[in-house]
Amino acid sequence: MNKVQGYDIEDLAPGMSASFAKTVTEGDILMYAGVSCDINAVHLNEDYAKTTMFGGRIAHGMLTAGFISAVLANKLPGPGTIYLAQTLKFKAPVRAGDTVTATVTVREVLVAKKRVILDAVCTVAGKVVLEGESIMLCTSSKD
Amino acid sequence: MNKVQGYDIEDLAPGMSASFAKTVTEGDILMYAGVSCDINAVHLNEDYAKTTMFGGRIAHGMLTAGFISAVLANKLPGPGTIYLAQTLKFKAPVRAGDTVTATVTVREVLVAKKRVILDAVCTVAGKVVLEGESIMLCTSSKD
Repeated sequence: MNKVQGYDIEDLAPGMSASFAKTVTEGDILMYAGVSCDINAVHLNEDYAKTTMFGGRIAHGMLTAGFISAVLANKLPGPGTIYLAQTLKFKAPVRAGDTVTATVTVREVLVAKKRVILDAVCTVAGKVVLEGESIMLCTSSKD
Repeated sequence: MNKVQGYDIEDLAPGMSASFAKTVTEGDILMYAGVSCDINAVHLNEDYAKTTMFGGRIAHGMLTAGFISAVLANKLPGPGTIYLAQTLKFKAPVRAGDTVTATVTVREVLVAKKRVILDAVCTVAGKVVLEGESIMLCTSSKD
């Protein structure tokens, strides 16, 4: 571990995994609309959202993506590492009341480059709502 | 345009572009830490952040990514369209006080699939801080 309790690149191996789960509330959607300025009616206007394929308001996809950022930054590889890249495929809607579990799993460790590639997935009741790949720059025990 | 003032797929052509700009404040970083639960010390703890390569607190990369979501959802292709996928490369830090401009530009229009692919870039004072690709599912004037 590095001095701020994150993983050094030498600590990581394929298959290591960490999760973070959070219930998305109407308050989260409102706060995220405010901070992102994404005020699309499908997130905020129930009368309109009912007329869409979603049948009601949904959370912002990028709000769910933030939980991937959280598990990467807080747990694996954790503090002291730097977020380099992320891919995101939005697979299904998240609604207020849904509990989202974000899980990252180490796929590849590039020790010389101090980079780790992780598979990232967010699920609601076992169903995939978001998936992608994360790339982090890690500390080294040799730094 | 569709009935909620977004672009139908038939309205789009390569080169069309839209932007959204916002000054990131300490309040944004605090709100985003709350809503995402990404509480990495580099965003919240100046004493710690000073010891990192960044030399002080930085905004969450995924907070900046939200401004891409905003310009896609609010402007181009806008209301009525659905966010399918996003890639993100975090190129440089954003700090409280920085004004971020998120710009999306249509690269490819797949009319039969009702999909549009856009280049997305976020800049601060002309410097690229985040870049990626967005894929949106659009409405059609033939729906």
